[in-house]
Amino acid sequence: MKNLLVAQSGGPTSAINATLCGVIEKGLINTNIEKIYGARNGILGILSEKLIELKPTLFNPEALQLLCQTPSSALGSCRMKLSDWKDSSLEYEKIISVLKKYNIGYFVYIGGNDSMDTVEKISSYCKAKNINDIKIIGAPKTIDNDLPQTDHCPGFGSAAKYIATTFAEIACDCRVYARPSVTIVEVMGRDTGWLTAASALARCNGHTAPDLIYLSEVPFDIEQFLEDVQAKLSEKMAIVIAISEGLKNEEGYYIADAMQSKQTDDFGHKILAGTGRFLEEIVRHEIGCKVRSIELNVMQRCASHIASASDIYEARLLGNAAADRAINGFSGEMACIKRISNTPYQIEITFSPIGEIANHVKFVPREWISEEGNDITQELMNYILPLVQGEFPVTYCNGVPVHFKLI
Amino acid sequence: MKNLLVAQSGGPTSAINATLCGVIEKGLINTNIEKIYGARNGILGILSEKLIELKPTLFNPEALQLLCQTPSSALGSCRMKLSDWKDSSLEYEKIISVLKKYNIGYFVYIGGNDSMDTVEKISSYCKAKNINDIKIIGAPKTIDNDLPQTDHCPGFGSAAKYIATTFAEIACDCRVYARPSVTIVEVMGRDTGWLTAASALARCNGHTAPDLIYLSEVPFDIEQFLEDVQAKLSEKMAIVIAISEGLKNEEGYYIADAMQSKQTDDFGHKILAGTGRFLEEIVRHEIGCKVRSIELNVMQRCASHIASASDIYEARLLGNAAADRAINGFSGEMACIKRISNTPYQIEITFSPIGEIANHVKFVPREWISEEGNDITQELMNYILPLVQGEFPVTYCNGVPVHFKLI
Repeated sequence: MKNLLVAQSGGPTSAINATLCGVIEKGLINTNIEKIYGARNGILGILSEKLIELKPTLFNPEALQLLCQTPSSALGSCRMKLSDWKDSSLEYEKIISVLKKYNIGYFVYIGGNDSMDTVEKISSYCKAKNINDIKIIGAPKTIDNDLPQTDHCPGFGSAAKYIATTFAEIACDCRVYARPSVTIVEVMGRDTGWLTAASALARCNGHTAPDLIYLSEVPFDIEQFLEDVQAKLSEKMAIVIAISEGLKNEEGYYIADAMQSKQTDDFGHKILAGTGRFLEEIVRHEIGCKVRSIELNVMQRCASHIASASDIYEARLLGNAAADRAINGFSGEMACIKRISNTPYQIEITFSPIGEIANHVKFVPREWISEEGNDITQELMNYILPLVQGEFPVTYCNGVPVHFKLI
Repeated sequence: MKNLLVAQSGGPTSAINATLCGVIEKGLINTNIEKIYGARNGILGILSEKLIELKPTLFNPEALQLLCQTPSSALGSCRMKLSDWKDSSLEYEKIISVLKKYNIGYFVYIGGNDSMDTVEKISSYCKAKNINDIKIIGAPKTIDNDLPQTDHCPGFGSAAKYIATTFAEIACDCRVYARPSVTIVEVMGRDTGWLTAASALARCNGHTAPDLIYLSEVPFDIEQFLEDVQAKLSEKMAIVIAISEGLKNEEGYYIADAMQSKQTDDFGHKILAGTGRFLEEIVRHEIGCKVRSIELNVMQRCASHIASASDIYEARLLGNAAADRAINGFSGEMACIKRISNTPYQIEITFSPIGEIANHVKFVPREWISEEGNDITQELMNYILPLVQGEFPVTYCNGVPVHFKLI
């Protein structure tokens, strides 16, 4: 009999706890698993031996259901990259000694790029040291949708559903006055534009917004942007623009940074205005109409009250599959989604060697972005659409969603 | 047979279309009403004779249901205050001539403070000029909840539900890392703190956030604020703070304005950093921990996907009651909600002379704010709680809510 360990890492999403739920469910039904441990704050919790037993709290359908509607990492998270074990093996020795002390045979690490780097490093350390009784599998999680090998990442669909819905609502909000206006909405994504692209789904039910979409993948030209805005304003009164927070110019600098390097506040700090705020000022100055910028901020990664039912389902499935894979003796892999068909939408779960995932980034293909670089193609819409389907049923109390909390 | 006219004015809410729906429903069932007109962009649409017939589009249960789940003003809105008719009666003569041309006997104007000013001015003009065959009734609408005479305003409950839910989700989001952090969330409310107070409902289901709450009504002291933050940080790792956008200092100046008057951007503009962003910089500089500010922005007034069922119900009821009141021969009043009891929550509809409402503001009573000025009392929680109950059922298509749009 071995024990199962699970931990969460990286930025929060609305689906990461559903993956945790899937791991726990596999542990609960497998008669070879004695205890299920959760590490607090990812790999940090292993290093500091903060492991808690999950069966007592979570052997309960209601708790597991609440867990699935709770955003962010119930076990806590960390942003930590292990150093190379060939340079320093101290942390690795500590990790292995804790795993052995708690009789961990299977470890599922849920997270994004940095977390898969951790999976790769620990599993390759184990291989090199002939530690064969600890199996480590990664389960993907990131709203950014930038992990390779998997068709898409759990967390992305729910964020995309929030973004599409919010753009539809903002489209209603900003068109009420009979005067020209520009609304710039900044969406997360430092390097990739997947989330920004999701704004286009607002058009599915008759909205024309967003009128312009700029993704991180395409070098951003301010003159061209102003021309695009002027052209749209000549057609309609109120325009809505979706932009990635990580827009860069031709030289690869974040546009807000490039233009604002001289600007400091009263304390001598550089003002870290976001990209949206920066473009708001540009439009106000150069075009002069009413302009507003909106940052969707952390809401896009934690608004679980409007989670995508498909996303939560797949997140749970991947957690389950990752634990199953470890129990079946595999290590150093990540559970992936493979899309079999789009209509009807069908997937299967596959596994990829972790070395092909860690530290790689999946960008939006250039051919899924319009030639002008200010919109997306129907193909990209078709890619995202199945991922936002269904509304995950949420339990409310006192008019507010109920969240699970570990004691 | 007379015709009924309805128009919407002021800032968008998630409930203003439900009030429109209520007005239309009354017009549809009353056999003395021939046509129902909607004016585009509030009073501007009357002045420019942009009246559209609503029966052809809206004599249809599905359309009316969609209307109720559509945020913002379906008829469009305006921000226009009429000048005093004793100074210049030109606009009034135009308005009356249009109303007569379209055989309008009853006019319901849905809006906030400025809109009630319009109701007051036109109805007093009619009275002075012995125009007795046009009856004008106001129906309240404002997320700010700052209209007097009515216990609360339609639109507030849905905004409050969004705010409470978002604070609960942000509480999950920001507690995942094992290091001290401050999250400042800026809520709408230039003069009143009703919306900011709604953040406290996040505590109903076990969250401790928000840890501090600052309303517009209490003079804001930065030194005291920093002491409060330090004290909370000594108790727990991640704290969440709710602030009204309109925080003012002891002298009555908006705190962000007062401190930033010298600061300009590259174009020579004054940087209009919001209050949250401003306090973020102060905390970063004075305390030095991880700090983030979040603006809930227009989402708090248009996130109809999480509208309060109670709010939408009451908004519809008030529209119905306002039209009914006009048809019954009354004029120069606003439909109000009177709370009969809190447990069980019971209301009745009353009417107040418009002169007691227009240009008055209802502030949060000081006794509903903690003595220290950094939290609210249980009484204020009890006041808000019934207003966020129930989830209005939303129709989705393609994974995104469907919105009604007038052709």
